[in-house]
Amino acid sequence: MRSSPLLSQLMEALRCLPGVGPKSAQRMAFHLLQRDRSGGLKLADALQQAMTEIGHCQTCRTFTELEQCAICSNSKRGESAQLCVVESAADIAAVEMTGQYSGRYFVLNGHLSPIDGIGPSDIGLDLLSERLANERISEVILATNPTVEGETTAHYIADLCRQYEVTATRIAHGVPIGGELDLVDGTTLSHSFAGRHRLS
Amino acid sequence: MRSSPLLSQLMEALRCLPGVGPKSAQRMAFHLLQRDRSGGLKLADALQQAMTEIGHCQTCRTFTELEQCAICSNSKRGESAQLCVVESAADIAAVEMTGQYSGRYFVLNGHLSPIDGIGPSDIGLDLLSERLANERISEVILATNPTVEGETTAHYIADLCRQYEVTATRIAHGVPIGGELDLVDGTTLSHSFAGRHRLS
Repeated sequence: MRSSPLLSQLMEALRCLPGVGPKSAQRMAFHLLQRDRSGGLKLADALQQAMTEIGHCQTCRTFTELEQCAICSNSKRGESAQLCVVESAADIAAVEMTGQYSGRYFVLNGHLSPIDGIGPSDIGLDLLSERLANERISEVILATNPTVEGETTAHYIADLCRQYEVTATRIAHGVPIGGELDLVDGTTLSHSFAGRHRLS
Repeated sequence: MRSSPLLSQLMEALRCLPGVGPKSAQRMAFHLLQRDRSGGLKLADALQQAMTEIGHCQTCRTFTELEQCAICSNSKRGESAQLCVVESAADIAAVEMTGQYSGRYFVLNGHLSPIDGIGPSDIGLDLLSERLANERISEVILATNPTVEGETTAHYIADLCRQYEVTATRIAHGVPIGGELDLVDGTTLSHSFAGRHRLS
């Protein structure tokens, strides 16, 4: 028996967060009520604002509340002729963390998946074609995930690039730095053999 | 560089939840934006309501938006002469889950801790004294945590019970059911020896 319907409602609502089960939801609810009500209220406001106001960048389809995201509206990056295609906005954060890439992005917000009825227009490839036709892009770096769907999507976009005579490249897959060879799975290892390059 | 200030604000706000670091906060924010905006809005509402409306039960001090919680206002349970004292409202949920206890509760919302300036009135012991004086209570079951502060608090309340000529009992501590003896720490094991009881 719960002593409070509002408390049960809060615990239930917290379970929409990924990785949060009944036990964590209870812990979170009690923590907020007991120790951090102002934090809880701030979170409520932030959620309300983010869920209603954040849309997609009209150029690269990442999440933003503006018409153009900070990267697309940055004139320095706009000069770059490189366009990196990723599956989700979170992937941009990962690439940005490396500090090695200073070009532009395009977010698919998914991948091709005919079984689920997800076709080229659902992942914004019409917008991408438009950009390939109208913008000065010399290289499209395909950074989709190394899954069956990600690979299929990468190959589909590579075909698209060919139509517009733009070079398409795929990020390298192989043994991760710091990883040990005997702990790496066979598929990754054969990729890393196939993708070997000459040292001398 | 973040593409959206609102998104950064949401990730920052999510970190008020216990066990949520920068990486989980990012995962949660992207999950809500990409897949479950309605869930996010529901959570915002539930948080807003819970943080502003939930207070404490006037009888047992657990969390509720009503004057009296569901357990205190349940006449069947009100007839019980047993009162279980716990440190937090979450502990009530744990005891209720056992289905073995049908008495009433009293929530301290903390424990005695002179170093942190937490004295008897901060954990509602004035209200408890009042209940011991005015209600028909025959046994106070002390279910505070088996920590130094929890033990101190239990002993303090046991002294209080003596003044009102009410029996105070402490829940048993020992080897957990299903646990293995050689994996149990020494303190627990010595508690379980000290608390042994006669079988025949």
